[in-house]
Amino acid sequence: MKLLRFGAEGAERPGLLDADGTVRDLSGVVPDLGGDGVSRVALDRIRALDPAALPSVAEPGRIGACLNFVPNFYCIGLNYARHAAETGSKTPSEPILFSKAASALSGPYDPVVLPRGSQKGDWEVELGVVIGRETLYVSEAEALDCVAGYCVVNDVSEREFQIERKGQWIKGKSAPTFGPVGPWLVTADEVPDPQALTLSLTLNGETAQASSTSDMIFGVAEIVSYMSRFMKLVPGDIIATGTPEGVGMGMTPQRFLQPGDVMELTVEGLGTQRQEVVAAG
Amino acid sequence: MKLLRFGAEGAERPGLLDADGTVRDLSGVVPDLGGDGVSRVALDRIRALDPAALPSVAEPGRIGACLNFVPNFYCIGLNYARHAAETGSKTPSEPILFSKAASALSGPYDPVVLPRGSQKGDWEVELGVVIGRETLYVSEAEALDCVAGYCVVNDVSEREFQIERKGQWIKGKSAPTFGPVGPWLVTADEVPDPQALTLSLTLNGETAQASSTSDMIFGVAEIVSYMSRFMKLVPGDIIATGTPEGVGMGMTPQRFLQPGDVMELTVEGLGTQRQEVVAAG
Repeated sequence: MKLLRFGAEGAERPGLLDADGTVRDLSGVVPDLGGDGVSRVALDRIRALDPAALPSVAEPGRIGACLNFVPNFYCIGLNYARHAAETGSKTPSEPILFSKAASALSGPYDPVVLPRGSQKGDWEVELGVVIGRETLYVSEAEALDCVAGYCVVNDVSEREFQIERKGQWIKGKSAPTFGPVGPWLVTADEVPDPQALTLSLTLNGETAQASSTSDMIFGVAEIVSYMSRFMKLVPGDIIATGTPEGVGMGMTPQRFLQPGDVMELTVEGLGTQRQEVVAAG
Repeated sequence: MKLLRFGAEGAERPGLLDADGTVRDLSGVVPDLGGDGVSRVALDRIRALDPAALPSVAEPGRIGACLNFVPNFYCIGLNYARHAAETGSKTPSEPILFSKAASALSGPYDPVVLPRGSQKGDWEVELGVVIGRETLYVSEAEALDCVAGYCVVNDVSEREFQIERKGQWIKGKSAPTFGPVGPWLVTADEVPDPQALTLSLTLNGETAQASSTSDMIFGVAEIVSYMSRFMKLVPGDIIATGTPEGVGMGMTPQRFLQPGDVMELTVEGLGTQRQEVVAAG
């Protein structure tokens, strides 16, 4: 299934994209998509519905983030070898984990707002993994059974805040709108192999990133299993699994986001995001 | 006001500690304490109630975390000069920010569970700050108006996971039970100066940490203002503001947590926590 949320910001309703590409309104039958609302159990309940029996939405309007909130917004760093190289980092020997503020969550077509003082805004197309059940000490073999689905994530980053402001990366990953998620939550049954998806990003129409999740250093199952040794993952947690080469800080000369820039991001089978960059007021 | 949550894990009810030390049941009048439930507006509504008109609870039983969930569990690192020194770190020139998994949230008297493979569990008594309104680009002068209240936090840490497993600190800060919070959320009006509170921790009855929030490098107002340049803080977010010297990794020889150890933590005016250490099953 392809699940989405449509409507004005803060007033989105949950919906389902049916086989004909029509949005069907789920708001009468489920509370919202997020947290326990995207547990594997909750998704099975949606799957049991007849889409044709749900109200069709002629004009869904704005598409919001496909989750109404995230309990945790986790990210994996330097998970593609050529991206690690372009940042001047060594290939990590185990997954590098960090987080974004949950309040960075944003719609797939909403503007990306550069925070005050930003000089080094940057883009990162990523495969997002949404957790579907409580997950602690899970083996790699069982890890994909804990996944609710997948979505496109732009792990928008401010490199000066991230790297030059002391300490940990969260400072450069967390501004409002720095976490576009969607347009769809594509349930795991429609993604038989998460390690065989092309992903790409264009900046103002020119290709900046173009790769495949087959190039990940640590695959989705390994990441989920690894993380579950350090924390309990819960339904609705999102894990952005790292970005391939082609970010602005890796270019010569470096190229950072400016107001008016347009990013378009696609992960195979998961849809396309588009964001215009604006400056904070 | 002193607000708390009482009852079995997962079935806690919100309550208020009245002037006589009696727990009054708030479950009939507010949803729960967490997120928007601890916004300044929501707290004003509780303040307007007559405690004597609320049901008294003769036997509250277990006291849970004073928040039912946290949108974000932020922490400040190395925020006391002597603690920075004992870890071999330089005094930071601006606040070091990291996060715990939200699922680390735990009750103040619940056991602390050392995760599988843990060799270097450690303790950190801290002043916790709970945010009371959406906070973005707030000045230092206005920052304390954004605080809902304060509580004791034990920023339990696994030093090998934190420091020796590559990358960011979150890996060693996030195991289930690594975030005891409470016993009370003490509203900001009862803490006129958050920089004048003694705080201490004993391990098996012996003092390990004993200091004052006056020794913080960056005070609460400065931290809230600083963070609001990088992320939007939201009601119910918690910020653990750093620990003074006296952690296990700073001792000679180093002393790490073992099953059976008992930690007792107090912050002046905010109550006392007590946790027994157990090993993960």
